[in-house]
Amino acid sequence: MSVRDEILEQPAALQRLLDAAPGAFAPISAAVRSRRPRFVVMAARGSSDNAGIYAQYLLAVRNGLIVALAAPSTITLYGARPDMADALVVGISQSGRSPDIVGVVEEARRQGALTVALTNDGASPLAGTADHVIDLHAGPERATAATKTYTGELLAAALLSTALDPPEPAETAALGALPHLVSAALAVEPQARDLAARHATRQRAVVLGRGYSYPSAREWALKLQEMALVAAMAYSAADFEHGPLALAEPGLPVLAVACSGPELEAQVALLTRLKADHGARLLVISDAAAARTIDEGLALPGGVPPWLAPIVEIVPAQLYAYHLTVARGLDPEHPRSIHKVTETR
Amino acid sequence: MSVRDEILEQPAALQRLLDAAPGAFAPISAAVRSRRPRFVVMAARGSSDNAGIYAQYLLAVRNGLIVALAAPSTITLYGARPDMADALVVGISQSGRSPDIVGVVEEARRQGALTVALTNDGASPLAGTADHVIDLHAGPERATAATKTYTGELLAAALLSTALDPPEPAETAALGALPHLVSAALAVEPQARDLAARHATRQRAVVLGRGYSYPSAREWALKLQEMALVAAMAYSAADFEHGPLALAEPGLPVLAVACSGPELEAQVALLTRLKADHGARLLVISDAAAARTIDEGLALPGGVPPWLAPIVEIVPAQLYAYHLTVARGLDPEHPRSIHKVTETR
Repeated sequence: MSVRDEILEQPAALQRLLDAAPGAFAPISAAVRSRRPRFVVMAARGSSDNAGIYAQYLLAVRNGLIVALAAPSTITLYGARPDMADALVVGISQSGRSPDIVGVVEEARRQGALTVALTNDGASPLAGTADHVIDLHAGPERATAATKTYTGELLAAALLSTALDPPEPAETAALGALPHLVSAALAVEPQARDLAARHATRQRAVVLGRGYSYPSAREWALKLQEMALVAAMAYSAADFEHGPLALAEPGLPVLAVACSGPELEAQVALLTRLKADHGARLLVISDAAAARTIDEGLALPGGVPPWLAPIVEIVPAQLYAYHLTVARGLDPEHPRSIHKVTETR
Repeated sequence: MSVRDEILEQPAALQRLLDAAPGAFAPISAAVRSRRPRFVVMAARGSSDNAGIYAQYLLAVRNGLIVALAAPSTITLYGARPDMADALVVGISQSGRSPDIVGVVEEARRQGALTVALTNDGASPLAGTADHVIDLHAGPERATAATKTYTGELLAAALLSTALDPPEPAETAALGALPHLVSAALAVEPQARDLAARHATRQRAVVLGRGYSYPSAREWALKLQEMALVAAMAYSAADFEHGPLALAEPGLPVLAVACSGPELEAQVALLTRLKADHGARLLVISDAAAARTIDEGLALPGGVPPWLAPIVEIVPAQLYAYHLTVARGLDPEHPRSIHKVTETR
């Protein structure tokens, strides 16, 4: 298995998680109905933290719940005991082995909070700590860069949302269509490879997204950093205008994820300005021609509702990062200096 | 007034806020005693968002409260109505004019939540929306890059923490000593200028901090981006090890804030590895010689407790960013492309 195999395996991995979901999430639905948490705490690092940001948006919009992204070091380094007794506390980690993430869930359980682990290893310390465990069913992930476990974490977060508030029929249909839509997104690989070959000498990039696509921008930047060794800076398009816009200059590579939804118009306006007024060079992943044709683009399949778009739109970004790594003569399987399991405290 | 004048004015600005604090925070103390919020929501963008991250750490450690950093677009773009009725909701904005920050506080007030505005303009829309207003008393900030309003927001967050749970005598003394300690931190200006002159050709940097110093790393990176046009990437030192460490290579400029406290030992170990194993070039702001002498360093005054260190340690970072901007032949007063008030929705 190579990282490319793991990218291509995503439709099958997502299907396995969908098949397991009814049984896996039913006890969580029951527990939430009886406990009625007042807010949610997510503990995660790296790619899993990006999945946590997706959950932050989704649970606010779809479930009306405020989600705090835990600062694990407040507990593990400073000895804080923040009150989580009323909260639903979710640890997200593909390996389930980062001690600081386990530490947050341990403290929450000690306080009597309702705890859930989203992990690809049902025998991990994180799984052993939480009340409820959702196994991602992604199969072993050998590559250091997370791909199929990232989309698995996103889908697990979406399924958690539907476990808290039952889905409409259209939502159930959209979840069921995901493996097919991710397959369709994989079809851009030839274009992603060609663009990557032309971009092989680029040393830096600004990566933009907004709303549901903000975690996608962060995850794209992380893949570019860890595999392709590109100095990629991710911003929400709104935060970018509060300062970092000063970096815009002729030739600046700007990568963006801009899908149909309420934030599309503002994103197209910003990207058009970056190209026309600042001379930036854009690559936009989008289902909307208005975004894709400002400069270079990679097309997404249509028909994905905004709340599930992150699971589909990251796929062309993964393929681009993989092929940029190869085009730069680097080894995508063994990124420099890092390991699959990182144990921070 | 130039941005340098505003950096140098910080001891006086902080003293004004300290002098106004007893009257300003008393009604908040009373309201919190009667309402007993279950968690906290902070809404902010740009530099103010970094102040919000500081508040997230401080309120967890000192007050035992989980702090969620709001995703304003869930409310302003997606129409979410996340339940904040049990929360203390704090909007942070020097101008008080960003519509999305005002939108979060408006929605919170509609739900009956306890709301507070931290702003440098008591007549702003944000101030008009919140139940309680803390004026930063920083005086007009003319430069686009926020400096004295950033440290003002940090101090306001610290005072908010002491309004929620009364300070020990040592904490009161430490707050009172801040203007003097910030003055002492300003004394490194000649060294910061010399280092900046030698670093003038650098185009990129990784900026690291952990725990209380993580927001300082982010704020330092933001100053470098918006004033000096450096591609600066900020990470918590723990997240950096989950992937971006792959970027480490000979000559990589690494800036770090690493102060005495429970995270110092792990930070010194990481920075030592970055220098010895990867050949990175370090500049470390620290009160601890063990961190400062790994490579280049800027000294902080001793005697600052960890919970107040961010207010002092950002000062050498501001001076370095200012002098790097000048050394690069750029205009620190008028950063390219951005405006003082950014109205994102």
